[in-house]
Amino acid sequence: MKRIGVLTSGGDAPGMNAAVRAVVRKAIYHDLEVMGIYNGYQGLIDGKIEQLDLGSVGDIIQRGGTKLYSARCLEFKTEEGQLKAIEQMKKHGIEGLVVIGGDGSYRGAMALTAKGFPCIGVPGTIDNDIPGTDYTIGFDTALNTVIDAIDKIRDTATSHERTFIIEVMGRDAGDLALWAGLAGGAETIVIPEEPFDLPDILARLRSGHERGKKHSIIIVSEGVMNANEFSKLLKDHANIETKVSVLGHIQRGGSPTGRDRVLASLFGARAVEMLMEGQGGLAIGMRNHQVVDYSMTEAFDGKHIADLSMYKLSKELAI
Amino acid sequence: MKRIGVLTSGGDAPGMNAAVRAVVRKAIYHDLEVMGIYNGYQGLIDGKIEQLDLGSVGDIIQRGGTKLYSARCLEFKTEEGQLKAIEQMKKHGIEGLVVIGGDGSYRGAMALTAKGFPCIGVPGTIDNDIPGTDYTIGFDTALNTVIDAIDKIRDTATSHERTFIIEVMGRDAGDLALWAGLAGGAETIVIPEEPFDLPDILARLRSGHERGKKHSIIIVSEGVMNANEFSKLLKDHANIETKVSVLGHIQRGGSPTGRDRVLASLFGARAVEMLMEGQGGLAIGMRNHQVVDYSMTEAFDGKHIADLSMYKLSKELAI
Amino acid sequence: MKRIGVLTSGGDAPGMNAAVRAVVRKAIYHDLEVMGIYNGYQGLIDGKIEQLDLGSVGDIIQRGGTKLYSARCLEFKTEEGQLKAIEQMKKHGIEGLVVIGGDGSYRGAMALTAKGFPCIGVPGTIDNDIPGTDYTIGFDTALNTVIDAIDKIRDTATSHERTFIIEVMGRDAGDLALWAGLAGGAETIVIPEEPFDLPDILARLRSGHERGKKHSIIIVSEGVMNANEFSKLLKDHANIETKVSVLGHIQRGGSPTGRDRVLASLFGARAVEMLMEGQGGLAIGMRNHQVVDYSMTEAFDGKHIADLSMYKLSKELAI
Amino acid sequence: MKRIGVLTSGGDAPGMNAAVRAVVRKAIYHDLEVMGIYNGYQGLIDGKIEQLDLGSVGDIIQRGGTKLYSARCLEFKTEEGQLKAIEQMKKHGIEGLVVIGGDGSYRGAMALTAKGFPCIGVPGTIDNDIPGTDYTIGFDTALNTVIDAIDKIRDTATSHERTFIIEVMGRDAGDLALWAGLAGGAETIVIPEEPFDLPDILARLRSGHERGKKHSIIIVSEGVMNANEFSKLLKDHANIETKVSVLGHIQRGGSPTGRDRVLASLFGARAVEMLMEGQGGLAIGMRNHQVVDYSMTEAFDGKHIADLSMYKLSKELAI
Repeated sequence: MKRIGVLTSGGDAPGMNAAVRAVVRKAIYHDLEVMGIYNGYQGLIDGKIEQLDLGSVGDIIQRGGTKLYSARCLEFKTEEGQLKAIEQMKKHGIEGLVVIGGDGSYRGAMALTAKGFPCIGVPGTIDNDIPGTDYTIGFDTALNTVIDAIDKIRDTATSHERTFIIEVMGRDAGDLALWAGLAGGAETIVIPEEPFDLPDILARLRSGHERGKKHSIIIVSEGVMNANEFSKLLKDHANIETKVSVLGHIQRGGSPTGRDRVLASLFGARAVEMLMEGQGGLAIGMRNHQVVDYSMTEAFDGKHIADLSMYKLSKELAI
Repeated sequence: MKRIGVLTSGGDAPGMNAAVRAVVRKAIYHDLEVMGIYNGYQGLIDGKIEQLDLGSVGDIIQRGGTKLYSARCLEFKTEEGQLKAIEQMKKHGIEGLVVIGGDGSYRGAMALTAKGFPCIGVPGTIDNDIPGTDYTIGFDTALNTVIDAIDKIRDTATSHERTFIIEVMGRDAGDLALWAGLAGGAETIVIPEEPFDLPDILARLRSGHERGKKHSIIIVSEGVMNANEFSKLLKDHANIETKVSVLGHIQRGGSPTGRDRVLASLFGARAVEMLMEGQGGLAIGMRNHQVVDYSMTEAFDGKHIADLSMYKLSKELAI
Repeated sequence: MKRIGVLTSGGDAPGMNAAVRAVVRKAIYHDLEVMGIYNGYQGLIDGKIEQLDLGSVGDIIQRGGTKLYSARCLEFKTEEGQLKAIEQMKKHGIEGLVVIGGDGSYRGAMALTAKGFPCIGVPGTIDNDIPGTDYTIGFDTALNTVIDAIDKIRDTATSHERTFIIEVMGRDAGDLALWAGLAGGAETIVIPEEPFDLPDILARLRSGHERGKKHSIIIVSEGVMNANEFSKLLKDHANIETKVSVLGHIQRGGSPTGRDRVLASLFGARAVEMLMEGQGGLAIGMRNHQVVDYSMTEAFDGKHIADLSMYKLSKELAI
Repeated sequence: MKRIGVLTSGGDAPGMNAAVRAVVRKAIYHDLEVMGIYNGYQGLIDGKIEQLDLGSVGDIIQRGGTKLYSARCLEFKTEEGQLKAIEQMKKHGIEGLVVIGGDGSYRGAMALTAKGFPCIGVPGTIDNDIPGTDYTIGFDTALNTVIDAIDKIRDTATSHERTFIIEVMGRDAGDLALWAGLAGGAETIVIPEEPFDLPDILARLRSGHERGKKHSIIIVSEGVMNANEFSKLLKDHANIETKVSVLGHIQRGGSPTGRDRVLASLFGARAVEMLMEGQGGLAIGMRNHQVVDYSMTEAFDGKHIADLSMYKLSKELAI
């Protein structure tokens, strides 16, 4: 193998740049050339491809977002799109591809591999929802962004003795809500994995209030319902007034944490090694504190399961 | 004067604790006693009053929110409420009062002063909208919170080549939107002080796009309209897709910046001096880089004016 | 078991407060009473003991340092001191003890357990150097503090094209230097676990310089030598001018990260469960992504081993 | 005027990039061309000069350091060096120059102006020590970096009941020490502008200790002595043990605060206007809340005076 490509796909996540940097430097360390593909699969189809050298990835390890940009690409879901992509890769001499993104991005990578172009998937998404890996790049940073927001909101909630509903990202997975709720000392956490128990939530709010608590914080995962709907629910069922905060896209940005940068570096470097070993159709992950690889199909056919013991613990600690 | 009181009122703002600390320590330095009144004017009526010593204000200079809590109080707007408050102050031996809050809070303070209980107002609000002072406590911290959010959103906006509308606080005053927009490098700033020019905004978006800009950020002050309405406007008039971020209450919290802590210290200390000088009915402010005092009526009858030269400049720099 | 005690010992670490909170809340959830012991083992001997209720641990999950304070205690290393401690625990009705601290603190806990007072150890130290657990409470926060410092120093290093030597904590363990160096994109990392290779370091500095790199960052673990000594070494051997930054005690403080708060919550709660199960002389840890417990002797007799594959990777990425 | 140049000189300061951005955009807004000069005056002599367009300054408003780099240049202090610089400017068609840096940088700018090449100075230094302006670009960011460090150190100081000496930058001016000390709640501040009173400092430490204070923080400006010397002084005179923290170069880096970005934008834009007005030999500043300009000689012949009323206040509040 002489030359590989790297792209970022799907929602951007802090640490993607660190992963791109690791791919480029590890590859150059082994005398491979690296082509950066801009705008994800769309850019692969369109040939937005440029060589990356050591300098191209200087001073990016600490930057949020992705220097390679990202985009959705419906065309790539078609055979025709995939063939165009392969044509571009041939034209640019790319023999293997590292795809950094969510499990949706892995489907495309699998299709290319099946057509003879080996791809390795690197899990990058703040949602931590990719089956087969305990962590994804970006999750830790998003967690700390949410924590920081909760801490700020608690200041004002305490000052005014208010109940706040904070909506966090996570369409299918409650990891971000769960970790942030536990770490933020939230009274209640509502996640897609568990049906919420309204009477219990109301009872908690009341008992906390009676005990003299100055504030209550409820974390709601966007996958369950939006914060305004949840606020209305509390108003309608129990006449409880709440304030609402929708954290939104700040959760996707920011300089990556130390942990996300380390994860990105380990994953990116391992992806290069795997291409050099002649592998394809595999995803990298962290499992039981070890960097592992596994079939991409396991990622998109499997199901990520949040750690529900944390859910139980958060209830016990929020008495 | 032997004993003074201090309360925080209205929306909380980072730095209020630093101001309370300065009041307490400056007073004790001059051998005065200080009573802390909890929950603003409501607590004054209800007699939620406790003595504060040096230890009470230890380790709070860096905390957001207000240790004395805050609350709205309709009763205090009535003569009856005010008389109850005076009764409580007499009962607790309080001879003068420092009120930390917005200009709304000054009205109550003026009423007490008129009834013979001298009050001094200290401007605390993130909105920077109090007439007669160039800065209020909390504005600088809120500004940096908004900047931090803009920086995060720009990461993801750039990665996906998107236009974002960010709604910031400020019902009547555009200061926060204006400063944050200029400091955040926003393409467009929409504030209550200036009618916005939709064709011009659309033209900017288009020219930026044509020039290859990867993102556009529009800051909208909540006083003009909410971000979703503004998003709909762009969609309806020009079919421009935007993402929306409503920063909400994170803007009220957080550890105060150095500047807010210094301002709070200067203001709190000066308020004590003024009570010792036998003054009342005055507000403290920063004007032309000097700590000044002026009649509270100037604050609630006057009008705060944002610096519109910054508005003009932001347009020039956002070409 | 009716009543347990909790103390923090050794160097403080961000997240200790979150661990204390988890101990208190988990215990109260199970109808146990909790006594807080102030100033570590010294306070245990001196009887600085107070009951903690839900309110005592309100609003501390986000605070650095330890609300229970910490102190070194030579007296506790003697049998006499330990007997005094047991007397105090009997007097206060304490039947089991949670000790949050480093492996040094575990020795005392083991001694108490041997004398019939069951103790459970919770690993709290920024050094991540406790044998038997993959992570300790405080490490993740310290890592991010160091990263933040590296990012700031890189700004100025780049602007002036300078080489910086940054000294980080870690007397025996290079984890902090290793993770921070990898995550900070350092050119060179010097840790106690690996002899450093001066000619190789000089060669890297030169090749980076020739390639046009604007800055070089060298991370030195205090366990190897101090930054000034290392600077002198480079000056003496190769006439290379460097700037030095000793990060010092900022590494011990700060609001804990999300991860440290989660770890602290899991560990603190598990410690209570173990006391309820009648266990003692065990330490809690995280191993292979699972909360585990193991004999304290394993902690103080064993040896923590840093992940040297990260060391190797950092060299490959820093070409 | 058709074409101007911009350079950064002296120690770098957060916000310099925002100032460069403002110069470039304001100039382009008025149809001027802008040449970026790299490495300060040295780059001017060496002809390291490139045109800057709107894209060149995209996404830099939030970055610390200076994209144009900075360097010391002894050669530029000679007439010969200045003539080379003028030659380069002629060669590149540069008709006016914006110099962003400290007052040392103004001397060179004055020399060029005297030789017929109009220069405007923009104050950029974290030290806030330029005569004639109340604030310099970078000071506010450095202040907040120092505050953040003090907050972290206070966590650990409190936990262990320790006295800390923190050394901050400022060779001739105590502004950073003074503001940070007041905002950080330091017990003692030692600045170049005031002789320190050792017996008074010792008395403070003792009375705080007797009152039960858990920590003491002493801020020492590097212009007075280094922290280790000060620590030795306390040890030798009163047998007081202290811990030392030297903040060092982290104070120069980091993303600029909102205020520094606004200041940089106002100053950079005004500098362009002044060149367009045909002015030269003037420095921009903020005086009494207004952007002003004044002769550069006032800057390098004058003396910056720290606000000593803050020094007095800090003593009163630190009782």
